[in-house]
Amino acid sequence: MLADLKLRLAEIDDLNRVGAILGWDQSTYLPSGGGAARGRQSATLARIAQEKATDKGLGRLLDDLAPYEASLPADHDDAALIRVARRNYLKAIKLPVEFVGEFQEHASAMYMRWMAARPANDFASLVPGLERTLDFSRRAAEYFAPYEHIADPLIDYADQGMKARGIRAVFAELRAGLAPLAAAILSRPPADDSCIKQPFDTDKQLAFGKTIIEAYGFDFSRGRQDFAPHPFCTTFSVDDVRITTRVKPNDLTEALFSTLHEAGHAMYEQGGNPAYEGTSLQGGTSAGVHESQSRTWENIVGRSRAMWIHFYPRLQAVFPAQLGDVPLDVFHRAINKVERSLIRTDADEVTYNLHVMIRFDLELDLLEGKLAVRDLPQAWNARYASDLGITAPDDRDGCLQDMHWYAGLIGGAFQGYTLGNIISGQFMAAARAAMPDLDAQIASGHFAGLHGWLRENLYQHASKYTANELLQRITGGPLSVGPYLAYLRGKYSPLFDLS
Amino acid sequence: MLADLKLRLAEIDDLNRVGAILGWDQSTYLPSGGGAARGRQSATLARIAQEKATDKGLGRLLDDLAPYEASLPADHDDAALIRVARRNYLKAIKLPVEFVGEFQEHASAMYMRWMAARPANDFASLVPGLERTLDFSRRAAEYFAPYEHIADPLIDYADQGMKARGIRAVFAELRAGLAPLAAAILSRPPADDSCIKQPFDTDKQLAFGKTIIEAYGFDFSRGRQDFAPHPFCTTFSVDDVRITTRVKPNDLTEALFSTLHEAGHAMYEQGGNPAYEGTSLQGGTSAGVHESQSRTWENIVGRSRAMWIHFYPRLQAVFPAQLGDVPLDVFHRAINKVERSLIRTDADEVTYNLHVMIRFDLELDLLEGKLAVRDLPQAWNARYASDLGITAPDDRDGCLQDMHWYAGLIGGAFQGYTLGNIISGQFMAAARAAMPDLDAQIASGHFAGLHGWLRENLYQHASKYTANELLQRITGGPLSVGPYLAYLRGKYSPLFDLS
Repeated sequence: MLADLKLRLAEIDDLNRVGAILGWDQSTYLPSGGGAARGRQSATLARIAQEKATDKGLGRLLDDLAPYEASLPADHDDAALIRVARRNYLKAIKLPVEFVGEFQEHASAMYMRWMAARPANDFASLVPGLERTLDFSRRAAEYFAPYEHIADPLIDYADQGMKARGIRAVFAELRAGLAPLAAAILSRPPADDSCIKQPFDTDKQLAFGKTIIEAYGFDFSRGRQDFAPHPFCTTFSVDDVRITTRVKPNDLTEALFSTLHEAGHAMYEQGGNPAYEGTSLQGGTSAGVHESQSRTWENIVGRSRAMWIHFYPRLQAVFPAQLGDVPLDVFHRAINKVERSLIRTDADEVTYNLHVMIRFDLELDLLEGKLAVRDLPQAWNARYASDLGITAPDDRDGCLQDMHWYAGLIGGAFQGYTLGNIISGQFMAAARAAMPDLDAQIASGHFAGLHGWLRENLYQHASKYTANELLQRITGGPLSVGPYLAYLRGKYSPLFDLS
Repeated sequence: MLADLKLRLAEIDDLNRVGAILGWDQSTYLPSGGGAARGRQSATLARIAQEKATDKGLGRLLDDLAPYEASLPADHDDAALIRVARRNYLKAIKLPVEFVGEFQEHASAMYMRWMAARPANDFASLVPGLERTLDFSRRAAEYFAPYEHIADPLIDYADQGMKARGIRAVFAELRAGLAPLAAAILSRPPADDSCIKQPFDTDKQLAFGKTIIEAYGFDFSRGRQDFAPHPFCTTFSVDDVRITTRVKPNDLTEALFSTLHEAGHAMYEQGGNPAYEGTSLQGGTSAGVHESQSRTWENIVGRSRAMWIHFYPRLQAVFPAQLGDVPLDVFHRAINKVERSLIRTDADEVTYNLHVMIRFDLELDLLEGKLAVRDLPQAWNARYASDLGITAPDDRDGCLQDMHWYAGLIGGAFQGYTLGNIISGQFMAAARAAMPDLDAQIASGHFAGLHGWLRENLYQHASKYTANELLQRITGGPLSVGPYLAYLRGKYSPLFDLS
């Protein structure tokens, strides 16, 4: 019976992975004319996968396997497999097959429209489509009624077990810690980041990013990097994990940190237990845990002084004219500049979560009906003015900047980013406790210690445990903002001479 | 009922197109570790598509539609759709679903192995796999028993209605005309092709190729070009047709003519009636007719003096150091050099079909059991020695050069290339009769006349008519080697001063 289950799951998994390949191609290489057919193809695949994921025979098989599951320890792989497969099945049968297919086609078309509308700063053209997206989102949630908050079923898809009320409370606690820290830093003279805002050959930028992520442990024989308007990571198998980036000729940080970020996601995926391939246990377990790894490698490691002790002389050798005379400390402050900014993905660590909270709150407002789609740009700008003291000159750098709402549902799209930062603080505190010389390892260009610790404690488990279960196993406690706030204070106080 | 049929066909078509996307990615961007999972994914898709293509409900629907079909003129689109769908269905139900899935997985793995074995000149490592391919090929044919020749069912997949016996006869007639022509040319002093065997910047080579195919009419908003070890064309929809090429830094012709060749395939696909999208009528109708278009744009147009009257000054401007002092006639002779050569895709027009006939005969010998897989290199080399007077130094440039047997069945893989040349001669004779000033149009860089004539008479019909039906409609007669031989004689006699 377990073999039957695995066969069924592998087939569903193949279809979903193929869907990911279509999505990757759509974001990287699809010619402009190919969008309509791609939408149909994605919809057909999603519909067939959904039919198979909701097949009553699968439900019966899971019922029949319950006694076997009950006979095993809870953390036995087979028990976990049956448990997670059942959880996914019970979620999947809530959504009608036609609904999934229709939404997939809509989302694919919306993505193509957003690709055109963003550079044209044309939010208005997206309003009818986005209203349909909001309608799809509400209907998706309604299938799970009753719920405490209409966003809860959507959040649960990304971050199993989390709810709007709990997230609001954690976010409030984080904000209470972040606001005085941000205010203190913003009251100091700003960091001079002119050294990273110079012309840098884009090929050399990309090559340098690849050098770093290879040192991190990203395996290019089981992955690759391409260009896309919005960087992302996507998994076709544990042995084929792809990332994308974008590059700016006058800003060293755009390609570099998006590369480190996506490599963090990718290393999590590449590190999964190969035995889980094709089952419900493969792949990262939640948006939050995934983001904890991208942020770890992008920021906690990637913007640390220790890492640049190793890499900065190498970067200077690649760009001697631009950086030859710039001291490490100036460069390090430049890549950690804290400022009121417009673009989430470019934001510094201190203000980043304020960007995320705006989106999270606007999602809830849209779903609750407090905010109309056509009023989104105004609401967006009002929140940026109040929370970050800055307003976007146009929607390109405002509410059109992130693809999420234009390629998926509204609801559950953003909380994972901040949950990830919080979790990254907790995991890294545990890693440091296990490896007191971690900074020295990193300063000498050795990342195998950290990568190995993360593989052992986190990556190999893939989806076997939920975020909360992992936090318990790794840190011995629940989600907690303390370590992340302590990390930020410990890093930024000396950088900006805070008292 | 017709709407039901179209829904079913569209679903099958979506799955097949998605399979093509997986194949394209496998040939262009797949990281080396990703092959195993890709094999599984391709197999799953092929199996589901095969299940749907052989569903008894589809057969009943086609039966139910027979009276409607009979009430229509034979060339009515609906009648053609039902007729072609039924033909495909009756073929598809011959092959068991498990067989198709197994073969797909095997073929995908073989392709990855060939990718490694060819540069390593390691035919031996492929022998067990190729023996399995031969076994699959025989079994595939057996499902269609009785047959006149075991290759016939396999040939029929590529070139509907053609049989080994008929092809042997036509090929013999062609050979009888080609052999004296080749001998006469090879008795003359060889063309000096040193001008095209110089260092040429590869980016500029690729850009120039793109310039030409854009002028031809290849629509880059509905297609693209990437790199692959073996150039090919693949269709994801009428609005997304992709070609690949390869480039050599010391040979101008590699990228150039493979680009023109694949663009010919692609323009045929891009020119299909959009109303046929997602039905059995879309896409080129046979390997032979497809090849007639690739060879038309690669050779009949692409190596004509007329075309280079327009493009050669532009090519000289791109490569002034290499070609500035080389007269057009020297360049034109160089790109039409006739010689005893090893690589089919690089062969000149006169000897090309001799390469194809070797492969066709070897396929038949393998299928008939006259030739063992392990003896293929010897047999290959013996035929090259006898037919072309040349022997490959290793299998890389011998029996490992073409991907076909390593990525598909043995049988039916090659005859289309020579059928295509024959057909191209017939279609071009008809085009010239309709446009007596065709050479003048081409010499002034105008390809819209020829492209429009081909779209009107051939491309728009996609798979509506078979090769034989198209020959009848366009030329008023059956397959005939006369026009192609006349074209070759007319072109090469003045080029090489034949009496």
